Amino acid sequence: MATGTSELPELHPVLGFKLGTTSAGIKSADRPDLVVMEIAEGSSVAALFTKNAFCAAPVTVCKERLARCSPRYLVTNTGNANAGTGEQGLLDATQTCSALATLAGVEIDTILPFSTGVIGELLPIDKLLAGLPDAFDQLSESGWADAAQGILTTDTRAKGSSTQFGTDKPVTITGIAKGSGMIKPNMATMLAYVATDAVVNEELLHRALTLATEKSFNRITVDSDTSTNDSVVLVATGASGVIIDEESFDSFLENLCQVFTDLAQAIIRDAEGSSKFVTVVVDTAINQSEALKVAYTIAESPLVKTALSASDPNWGRILAAIGRSGIEDLDVNEVQILLNSVLIADHGARAPSYSEEAGQAAMQPEDIEIRVCLNRGDASEVVWTSDLTHEYVRINAEYRT
Amino acid sequence: MATGTSELPELHPVLGFKLGTTSAGIKSADRPDLVVMEIAEGSSVAALFTKNAFCAAPVTVCKERLARCSPRYLVTNTGNANAGTGEQGLLDATQTCSALATLAGVEIDTILPFSTGVIGELLPIDKLLAGLPDAFDQLSESGWADAAQGILTTDTRAKGSSTQFGTDKPVTITGIAKGSGMIKPNMATMLAYVATDAVVNEELLHRALTLATEKSFNRITVDSDTSTNDSVVLVATGASGVIIDEESFDSFLENLCQVFTDLAQAIIRDAEGSSKFVTVVVDTAINQSEALKVAYTIAESPLVKTALSASDPNWGRILAAIGRSGIEDLDVNEVQILLNSVLIADHGARAPSYSEEAGQAAMQPEDIEIRVCLNRGDASEVVWTSDLTHEYVRINAEYRT
Repeated sequence: MATGTSELPELHPVLGFKLGTTSAGIKSADRPDLVVMEIAEGSSVAALFTKNAFCAAPVTVCKERLARCSPRYLVTNTGNANAGTGEQGLLDATQTCSALATLAGVEIDTILPFSTGVIGELLPIDKLLAGLPDAFDQLSESGWADAAQGILTTDTRAKGSSTQFGTDKPVTITGIAKGSGMIKPNMATMLAYVATDAVVNEELLHRALTLATEKSFNRITVDSDTSTNDSVVLVATGASGVIIDEESFDSFLENLCQVFTDLAQAIIRDAEGSSKFVTVVVDTAINQSEALKVAYTIAESPLVKTALSASDPNWGRILAAIGRSGIEDLDVNEVQILLNSVLIADHGARAPSYSEEAGQAAMQPEDIEIRVCLNRGDASEVVWTSDLTHEYVRINAEYRT
Repeated sequence: MATGTSELPELHPVLGFKLGTTSAGIKSADRPDLVVMEIAEGSSVAALFTKNAFCAAPVTVCKERLARCSPRYLVTNTGNANAGTGEQGLLDATQTCSALATLAGVEIDTILPFSTGVIGELLPIDKLLAGLPDAFDQLSESGWADAAQGILTTDTRAKGSSTQFGTDKPVTITGIAKGSGMIKPNMATMLAYVATDAVVNEELLHRALTLATEKSFNRITVDSDTSTNDSVVLVATGASGVIIDEESFDSFLENLCQVFTDLAQAIIRDAEGSSKFVTVVVDTAINQSEALKVAYTIAESPLVKTALSASDPNWGRILAAIGRSGIEDLDVNEVQILLNSVLIADHGARAPSYSEEAGQAAMQPEDIEIRVCLNRGDASEVVWTSDLTHEYVRINAEYRT
C-alpha cells in the first residue's frame, strides 16, 4: 500500500552527473540492484550520514574518504546493507571501491560506497563485482529514472524530484531517494542523491545540505527506527556556470528544500503498508524543540497510527500522546486539536462544536493533517508520517524469511 | 491472543479490605464494570498516579483528596476513562463519590474514584449511579476474583497475585490489576489495587509502593503509550497485627515486589494481540539509565516487535535499535546479543558460532529473552514487553468503532 501518485516526475539531467544501473542478481534475478554514479572533476560534494552508532561499513568508509578528498564515483547496491558485518564488511566495501577504481582509472579514495537492505549478512561480493562493468557502461546523464529503481528495497515505487529555476541561465536540481521502513532519519534518510549544475563551493554546499536535510529528511518518521545506513549526498557539478554565493544562496536553498521535501514526502507516501499520508503540525509552542517533541510523540504513537489506519477520529489518543510527550508545565486547558481543519478538542476537552459525524468525515481523505495548538508561544514545527496497518506488520514479519 | 496461563491464582482474602462488583451496563449489558472497595478504618493507604499531563478527571480528584485525608472507599468504573472531559468530567467524578458517600455514611473526601476505558467521552453518570447500590451490597473480603473481572477493558483475562509469608502470624498480600494496551506506565500501571493485612505506617508504605512500582509496573511497555489513567493503590489494613518496621521492611518489600512483578508481567502476557512474552535484559552497562535507554529502545522498536511476532531471529534490527538508542561513545565492537541464551552477535557482528538454524530454534518458544551485553560497566536492567502482531492492529483499529 502507498498513498498519492506512483508516477515518477520528469527528472531533468544534470550536466556533469551520470548514472548507470544494472541487475547484479544481489536481490533477485533481473531486478536492478547496482547503481554507479559519476561526478565530473571539479564538482563540489557534501554528504550527511546516519547517527546510529552501529553505522554500516560503507558509511564508515564514506566518512573517512570524504575527509581526505573529493569523490568522483558513488556505488550503491541494494539487497544487503553491509551493516553488522564487522571487519569483513569493511573489506568488502573496500574491494567494491577498488574494482570500480580500476574500471574508471581513478584513485580508490575518490569512490564512495553505499549499501541498503538486510542487516547482518555479508555482502555477496562476487555478484557485486561481476555486475560493476555493466553498471559502469550504462553511465549516462539521462540515467536518473533507472537509478531511482535500482536503489529500492521494500519500496513499492521509485522516488524522484527535479526543478529548474533562474531565467537567463537556468539551474537544475534533480534528486532520487529510497526508503520505506526503518525510517526515522537522523541527519539523513536511508539513501538520497541530489545533484545540481550550479557552481557551489563546498562550504556553502554543506550549509545548504544541512539546512535542507533538517527541514525534510529529518522531519519524517515511519516507525521511529533510525537506520544503520542513512546517507544523503549533494553534488554541485558547476556545469551551468551559474555561481551560488551568499547573495543567491537563499533562492538556491529554497529550490533545494523543495526537492528535498518532495523526496522526503515521497518516502512517507511509500511507507511500508501505509494507507494515509499524515502531516502533524504543532504550533504556538514555546520553542522548536518542544514543538518537535509533541509532533514526534503523536507521529510515533502506535495507538494514534492504528486509529489513523481505521480513519477513526480517536482524538483521545492524540490528547494522551500530547500529555506524555514530556513538555514542562503544560496547561492542558489551553490545548486545541484540529483534524483536517475540524476543531475536535478545545480547552483540553471535546469542542462544543464537534460532532462525531464531522470527525468521521474529516478522517476519510488519504491525506490527513493533525494540528495541535499549545497556545503558549510562537514556535511551530511539522513532521510527516504514515499510519500503522496490517500490511506494515505483514511486510515486517515476512521480510527476510 | 495472549501468552502463558489464563487461570487466576488463588487470591487470599485480606482482613479489613472488601470488594463488591456489579454490572452497571456502562460497557455492555451483563458485563461486570463497576467495583467498590472498602478499606477498614485506621488502614494506611499509598497511591501513585500517571505522569501524563492530560491526567483523567478521577486522577485529579484522587490526588487532591489523598493530600487531605485517608481514603475509606475506592470506586472504579470500566468502559469510560473520564479523561479529556474537562470541567464536566470533574463534576461527574465528584457526583459518583457523593452518591457512594451517602450510601456508606462517610465523608465525600474519603472516597477515591477511578475510571478506565475510552478517552474523550463523558461518563454515563446515570448508569453508574444506578449501579452503585448493588456494588455496595456485594462488598465482601472474598470479592477479589469478581473485582479482577470488573476492572477489565480490552484485557482478555483477569490478573491477580497473592502471597502469604511469615510463620507465627502470617502476613497476606493480595492484588489485582488491569491493562492490555496504552501501556507504558510512568509511576504506575493502568489500574492496580494491592492490599495487605500487615501494620505499615504511611511513610513506610509509600516507600514500599515506590520501590516495588519502580521494578515492576515501571518496567513494562506494550506500545510506549503512557495512559491518562494509570493508578496503583496499596492498602495496609493492619488486621494481622504484624508490624512492619525498618527491620522487617526488606522482607515485606521482597514479598510485595513479587506480587507487583506478577501483576506487571500478567499485563504483558495479556498485551493486546501478543503472541510472545519478551524479557529484554541489558547488562554490563555504565549505569542504570543507560541500560534502560537501550532496553526500551529495543522493547519499543516496531521492527524488532514485528520480527518477534514472526519468530524471526532478525538480530540486525536489535543491533540497529541499540545503535540508535543514544548512549554516548558506544564501542559497537564490544556489543554481544543473545536470544534465549544463543549468542548471535559478538564484537558487533554475527558470532562465528551462530547458525541461522540455532537462531530459528531459539525464537520458537512463547517466552523470549533478548540479552544485550554492552561490556562497559556493572549496571543491569530488565524490561518486559510483547510483540507487534496483526491482532494488535486489528484491536486498535476497531476499538471505539
